Amino acid sequence: MAPVTPGHLADAIRVLAIDAIERATEGHQGVPLGMAEIATALYTRHLRFNPQDPLWPDRDRVVLSNGHGSMLLYALLHLTGYQKIDLEQVKSFRELGSHCAGHPEYDPAAGIEVTTGPLGQGIANAVGMAVAEAHLRARFGEGVVNHRTYAFVGDGCLQEGIGQEAIQLAGHLGLGKLTFFWDDNQITDDGSTELSISENVADRFRVAGWQVIEVDGHDVEAVSAAITLAHRDPRPSMIACKTVIAKGIPRLQGQRGGHSARLFPEDLAATRQALGWPHGGFDIPSDILAGWRAAGEHGAQDYVGWHTRLAALPAAQAAAFRDGQDGRLPECWQDVLADYASEMAANPQPLSTIQCSGEVISRLCTVAPDLLVTCADLEAPTNHKRQLAAFTATNPAGRYVHCGVREHLMGAMVNGMAAHRGVNPLSVTYLAFSDYQRPAMRMAALMGLPAKFVFSHDSIGVGKNGPTHQPVEILAALRVMPNMLVFRPADAVEVAECWEVALEQTRTPSTMVFAKQPVPPVRGDGGVENRVRRGAYLLKPAEGGPRQVTLLATGSEVHLAVAARQQLQAAGIATAVVSMPCWELFDQQDAAYRDEVLGTTGVRIGVEAALRFGWDAYLGRQGGFVGMTGFGASGPADQLYQHFGITVEAIVQQAHSLLASSSCCKEPA
Amino acid sequence: MAPVTPGHLADAIRVLAIDAIERATEGHQGVPLGMAEIATALYTRHLRFNPQDPLWPDRDRVVLSNGHGSMLLYALLHLTGYQKIDLEQVKSFRELGSHCAGHPEYDPAAGIEVTTGPLGQGIANAVGMAVAEAHLRARFGEGVVNHRTYAFVGDGCLQEGIGQEAIQLAGHLGLGKLTFFWDDNQITDDGSTELSISENVADRFRVAGWQVIEVDGHDVEAVSAAITLAHRDPRPSMIACKTVIAKGIPRLQGQRGGHSARLFPEDLAATRQALGWPHGGFDIPSDILAGWRAAGEHGAQDYVGWHTRLAALPAAQAAAFRDGQDGRLPECWQDVLADYASEMAANPQPLSTIQCSGEVISRLCTVAPDLLVTCADLEAPTNHKRQLAAFTATNPAGRYVHCGVREHLMGAMVNGMAAHRGVNPLSVTYLAFSDYQRPAMRMAALMGLPAKFVFSHDSIGVGKNGPTHQPVEILAALRVMPNMLVFRPADAVEVAECWEVALEQTRTPSTMVFAKQPVPPVRGDGGVENRVRRGAYLLKPAEGGPRQVTLLATGSEVHLAVAARQQLQAAGIATAVVSMPCWELFDQQDAAYRDEVLGTTGVRIGVEAALRFGWDAYLGRQGGFVGMTGFGASGPADQLYQHFGITVEAIVQQAHSLLASSSCCKEPA
Repeated sequence: MAPVTPGHLADAIRVLAIDAIERATEGHQGVPLGMAEIATALYTRHLRFNPQDPLWPDRDRVVLSNGHGSMLLYALLHLTGYQKIDLEQVKSFRELGSHCAGHPEYDPAAGIEVTTGPLGQGIANAVGMAVAEAHLRARFGEGVVNHRTYAFVGDGCLQEGIGQEAIQLAGHLGLGKLTFFWDDNQITDDGSTELSISENVADRFRVAGWQVIEVDGHDVEAVSAAITLAHRDPRPSMIACKTVIAKGIPRLQGQRGGHSARLFPEDLAATRQALGWPHGGFDIPSDILAGWRAAGEHGAQDYVGWHTRLAALPAAQAAAFRDGQDGRLPECWQDVLADYASEMAANPQPLSTIQCSGEVISRLCTVAPDLLVTCADLEAPTNHKRQLAAFTATNPAGRYVHCGVREHLMGAMVNGMAAHRGVNPLSVTYLAFSDYQRPAMRMAALMGLPAKFVFSHDSIGVGKNGPTHQPVEILAALRVMPNMLVFRPADAVEVAECWEVALEQTRTPSTMVFAKQPVPPVRGDGGVENRVRRGAYLLKPAEGGPRQVTLLATGSEVHLAVAARQQLQAAGIATAVVSMPCWELFDQQDAAYRDEVLGTTGVRIGVEAALRFGWDAYLGRQGGFVGMTGFGASGPADQLYQHFGITVEAIVQQAHSLLASSSCCKEPA
Repeated sequence: MAPVTPGHLADAIRVLAIDAIERATEGHQGVPLGMAEIATALYTRHLRFNPQDPLWPDRDRVVLSNGHGSMLLYALLHLTGYQKIDLEQVKSFRELGSHCAGHPEYDPAAGIEVTTGPLGQGIANAVGMAVAEAHLRARFGEGVVNHRTYAFVGDGCLQEGIGQEAIQLAGHLGLGKLTFFWDDNQITDDGSTELSISENVADRFRVAGWQVIEVDGHDVEAVSAAITLAHRDPRPSMIACKTVIAKGIPRLQGQRGGHSARLFPEDLAATRQALGWPHGGFDIPSDILAGWRAAGEHGAQDYVGWHTRLAALPAAQAAAFRDGQDGRLPECWQDVLADYASEMAANPQPLSTIQCSGEVISRLCTVAPDLLVTCADLEAPTNHKRQLAAFTATNPAGRYVHCGVREHLMGAMVNGMAAHRGVNPLSVTYLAFSDYQRPAMRMAALMGLPAKFVFSHDSIGVGKNGPTHQPVEILAALRVMPNMLVFRPADAVEVAECWEVALEQTRTPSTMVFAKQPVPPVRGDGGVENRVRRGAYLLKPAEGGPRQVTLLATGSEVHLAVAARQQLQAAGIATAVVSMPCWELFDQQDAAYRDEVLGTTGVRIGVEAALRFGWDAYLGRQGGFVGMTGFGASGPADQLYQHFGITVEAIVQQAHSLLASSSCCKEPA
């Protein structure tokens, strides 16, 4: 029997990929066939991993940023011995319920580090992973943290703006353990890359401070040598791999159709003939499989050594390391929040909730070393740096990452950090710019990563900066996202409570929405019971009879509802105020609690400096609403509230008119 | 009296800016003071404009991409004589109702070409404007179209991914009449640019194929010479201007606080002393004002000549030019749509709505030469290229712009094209990637530009590509955007009707949402009455008594509702089907029409392969809903519809159970 060559190993990827894709009747053969040798070089000679323990904290991370080439990843995971990706899974590629979904879906236990598909997300995740690694290495030492992050990258990832943001910042931060493999196949979905790009991609990386190594992507030795060069250089490295898309399929290789044109049985046969691969469908001969499995085992010694080194850490440090990996906060963290809440309740004063959040995070940072803050060039107005040092190329121990004006990258970096584990990341910018970050937030929700997306300047309260900077529709647009908690607290006490609930999440990201302008506090109690936990709660009961009016409000408008209630009660109208800082949590409560909070009698009015869209679920179609009906305007915040009619008077007036037109005490619609 | 120097002219910008900003108590002095000489060089020596006719079609376009520096623009517009920006407006900077809003707000009659503020949008708009210019020049000749596009650019615009996309594509398309002025002041909001960037920005532009000219940004002669070089080069040009932020304010110049730290009366006095400017607040001496007004008049001769050349065009071409400028489609355009609709109604067959849209646009393109299509590397699956030639550096007459995988840029380019006028732009990509484009769509809505954002692959109907590519929350997220029409047609006839209504808009952008998968047609009529015009309509009436069930559906789910109605009617339940392709239009109808369509008796059920969020406005809280409850999955589309319970059976079952639990014929909640 002839010895197994790297070419055989690469061809095993090829045939698994085309067999699965043909069986699924669709898929993207371009990447797995074009990058087979690159992957072979990486996985068989350099990658530090253990398929028997996919969650090994010090494993190298691999991100398939060109996620449509998912069969490359599944083939590698299967061949190297990840148990969750057995042959049955590969055969069920793209079938409902398969671990081998159309695009890779986050499942670290299966070896899938992040969900990818929307282009550019993956390499931005990789930048976040490399930041997490560098930071943890600085904190715990090279003995227990010393791994690399690799990403497979297509042309699309480098055309997307987020990809360019990633290149810029990775070079700036000197992330030397980050390596990209660029699949330079000169083809995109539309055809030749000449249709849409003419810059020298290698030079673009060089300008950003990367090492670039140009190789033949089908030469395993050359790719392997390039990886060695990457390891030796302090800069991040981009290995520019000249490749032939869909290499091996005679009809499609090097062609536009190589990307994802449908494969037929004839293609499988022709490819086998061209490769000199005599074996049947999904049949990997045992010697070649053994070659791959050996690759999956060559990290075993390193793996054992790592455990020895971990065991040798001082106990406190070892415990801290494990806490970080498990996402456990120190025992006292809830006390910190409760103390803050009780302090604030005892000293009521108008404050802006973004300032409160800054204070809360600052206090938490002193006890929770895992917390990392990223911000998109708004340090001063968002107030979340405080005592934190900047994370830089020379000080990776810093806990505040100046991301520059790159919100999209920042969101995806936070995802990468959360997926990496060991750090507890949050990002900070203005709510108006959440739209720039939204595609990354969607990925967090889809993956179930407990990332925290913090936003300030959440309404017309922004004032004179005007409608570009004033969210009106954005709250609703975020609330509609599945598996995303959206918090909008009313005052300092609620800020602390919202943070407590957000930090308890393990499989759900949170969006924290704060106001710029100071608002009067609404909570006289704090630090005893977390009332935000159920999403909405009765802040002020109706007095003097069954409820006639229920005011439902969030954030910086709750105090308006409280003041309106006072006037209505004075007029003999039994009025309750419900604070609703988190709709998603409220929706999870049982019907009895929801009825108790929303009331079953009288009329309801929503109060929020945003659009009504979505509120009808609580108000019914006949309920009232005091809020925005379109975009904002440039002017002083207090004048804008008057101009747009979001006032105590408007609430009171609407209550009177609804009561006049409805038969009171009827079940609300 | 000493002669007026360029320095005096520049200082006039400075004092107007600081006087207005101090009076407003906030604003961003960094840009107007740092770019005063650059603006002076451009406006007094090169810009082709006429403040007496701000809408002159062949004017040069100026975009303030660093929109926070709005006082630079207002000062220039005031000084050069734009009537809408008189001194009272400047004095009311940032006050409610002022034309001088916190960030520039689109008002071409005032000289404000686009709304800017969210960074990067402006330079991407500028790329779109330059494409429109190049295309119209190719179509109508240099005699009537021959202008330039200039953009003022800060560091933030170049950190944002959209800015990088703009640089790449502008270089690729060889947009030689595009010139950026980079305000290289080494400061961002967080402090030194060293915090977040270390690449050589000039080199980054060079890699992308730009001419780069490096100058002292405070040397009017040097900047002017650079502009001349820019004019002579076939590449787009970036003039890298080394500047001092807030130059002239002793306390703040060159400092982080120069960006936007609050100004006080002492600063005004100290600045006047430093500049040697003896005049009072808002007082521009007459000789200096005359110098500026002369700059505003030096294009007069060119302006007259242009009108002469326009008048000399062949009548048909002149009419076509005017039609383009006025956004008028050719008279027959509605016939084209009606013909298509009646053809389709006469030949019912399952079709995918994205294919129908491709056919509609293809037919319209043959009669409407203003239509331009942009697409983000999805030509084949979105089917909107057809007979159109590609717009390239060598063929600007082409009408299909291959934008590459750059959705965000594409959206902002379409805005720039629409603001430019003369072309009627639409963009095409998958709905899942609308999130990448969303910040640009928001700007279109805010500006009221009639851009068309086309999206395919709108639901789990995407199938095996899985949840990353399956919108579930995105429809709602778009519907919540103010001043945006969202269309989701059910079949070919509705596609034609939706396009008709969208193309009639003059101040509202439209989002066109289409399905990938073929669906059975629901309309037997077509080409007679546009039933989409009122947003929702009674597709199938209830028969045999007062309505017991009303099924409200959109897009690819309407046919399910029609089939369910058939079963319910067969069971003796009077059931109506309402097709709701455009909620926003329906919401504008009077109450009588809305009641007529929604019905006032029985139960209601919404049917849409998306989340319920937003639907309660029509369903009430007790209404039923057949749709999604979370993210999708990877699998065949038909299996996904079964898996997620979006089926005829589910609709029928829900109708039965709602009828059982409700008192029939009651007013729905």
